[in-house]
Amino acid sequence: MINKLCIVGIGLIGGSLARALRVAGYAHEIVGYGRSLGNLQQAVELGVIDRAEVSLTDAVRHVDMVVLAVPVGCMAEILGEVGPALADRAVVTDVGSVKGSVIEAARKALGKRFTHFVPGHPLAGTEQSGVAASQADLFQGRRVILSPEPETDATATASVRAMWEAAGAEVATLSAVDHDRILAVSSHLPHMLAYCLMDMVVRHDDHRAILECAASGFRDTTRVAGSDPVMWRDICLANRDALLAALRQYHDDLGALAAAIEKGDGEWLCETFKRAKHTRAALNKKFDVQA
Amino acid sequence: MINKLCIVGIGLIGGSLARALRVAGYAHEIVGYGRSLGNLQQAVELGVIDRAEVSLTDAVRHVDMVVLAVPVGCMAEILGEVGPALADRAVVTDVGSVKGSVIEAARKALGKRFTHFVPGHPLAGTEQSGVAASQADLFQGRRVILSPEPETDATATASVRAMWEAAGAEVATLSAVDHDRILAVSSHLPHMLAYCLMDMVVRHDDHRAILECAASGFRDTTRVAGSDPVMWRDICLANRDALLAALRQYHDDLGALAAAIEKGDGEWLCETFKRAKHTRAALNKKFDVQA
Repeated sequence: MINKLCIVGIGLIGGSLARALRVAGYAHEIVGYGRSLGNLQQAVELGVIDRAEVSLTDAVRHVDMVVLAVPVGCMAEILGEVGPALADRAVVTDVGSVKGSVIEAARKALGKRFTHFVPGHPLAGTEQSGVAASQADLFQGRRVILSPEPETDATATASVRAMWEAAGAEVATLSAVDHDRILAVSSHLPHMLAYCLMDMVVRHDDHRAILECAASGFRDTTRVAGSDPVMWRDICLANRDALLAALRQYHDDLGALAAAIEKGDGEWLCETFKRAKHTRAALNKKFDVQA
Repeated sequence: MINKLCIVGIGLIGGSLARALRVAGYAHEIVGYGRSLGNLQQAVELGVIDRAEVSLTDAVRHVDMVVLAVPVGCMAEILGEVGPALADRAVVTDVGSVKGSVIEAARKALGKRFTHFVPGHPLAGTEQSGVAASQADLFQGRRVILSPEPETDATATASVRAMWEAAGAEVATLSAVDHDRILAVSSHLPHMLAYCLMDMVVRHDDHRAILECAASGFRDTTRVAGSDPVMWRDICLANRDALLAALRQYHDDLGALAAAIEKGDGEWLCETFKRAKHTRAALNKKFDVQA
């Protein structure tokens, strides 16, 4: 339980965290700040936050914890504004999908206060955006990764962990480099594949017929192509090297698959599909538990 | 309403069709044939079919309609056995995901009887297999494509259409060439992308951590990688040219996406993601209606 929490960016993730922490009675007061006044007003009307602030420095003054729930590309600017306004023992954390670039920005912007910055990333979300899509149980049973640096204050890390646990999440730690390399494959690459497939169809001569014939396979494979374009542009730019490595590996693998089809190598195809199906089946069990 | 219907292959699709037609009271008797005796027995025990036959020629003798619900690669052999045993006015249809290769096989195997072969493809299914996964409402509101050839008997086509409508489906027609080109993009390509992503992860040094960090984006993008390997090997081989064209286009598009990330071209990325999101949102409405 803390006194005052400020969430910067009351979208799907920030709004869901606010809802979850209100249900848990985790903070006396949850203050929200965001660039869209309409969204902020809606957050107050929906009872997601206690109070909206229109000045970022006012929003973060005197709070115990600040959660930055904005696109990765906005972090540097916001950290620069937030830093000087913070109380001495205030803890700052973020929810960005890339950790290396956010840590670099925080180190620059926060100076000595960097020890109270705890890099974080909840592995939850939907393709939707905005406070209207937020849900109190979004993090229930989901994993949150914290990536503290060597100089990160252990008490700060513990309080961010406690916050996420109050929201129902399971907290794990991973170095920023490991996080960015692993998430490039588990999350960033699938988003690229979905966007690329959807955009190929948009530009296809048969696009009307293809969409008419789209069934559940197409639906699920492209679901995340409905995700926020700005957020994903930022992720691409911020995790460039790891994402490029994953994309190149996939590009090669897809070339090998095409070559097997061209050669009519049924054995290769069947073995590859079997191996994929086997591991996918194991994964189903994990998701059944979460669902 | 017909007297006797035979379904060859009582898996997810064949079993679901049998269930739907029993609910609709469409046939006096539904006879099932399949290679797996265990599965066939289960189909009888579950009440999916009235009777199982262990001889294919016995199964199709004296029936009004035969539905071939087997992998595309088995069609030629089964059509060869079925042809000579058919009653004069019996109609034969299939549920294969590729139409050109099945039509070619049917033309060879059925000779004069080819006029009573109506190529069909229900755009429904899940990644699961076997009669245990079958559901009476699988085709409810889903599209079935029929691809009659110029010489196909119009009465035969009408009776296959009536059968699918009794099962709750909406029937449309498309030439075999159009079907195979369009489905290569709307269905076959997404399956390849899912298999390829899943298999890349299986072979990845970080595979354990990647699977631990997999969230709903990864889950949905790879769902169809749980599909039957033999069925999909057959589809790859049977729709080789159209699928290769789709794969090459995608391969090029993914290369362009990687190049934009490498160059740090945020504008290109954002425009592409926006275009994809816009069309994906329109598609959501279609799926909401179906769900």
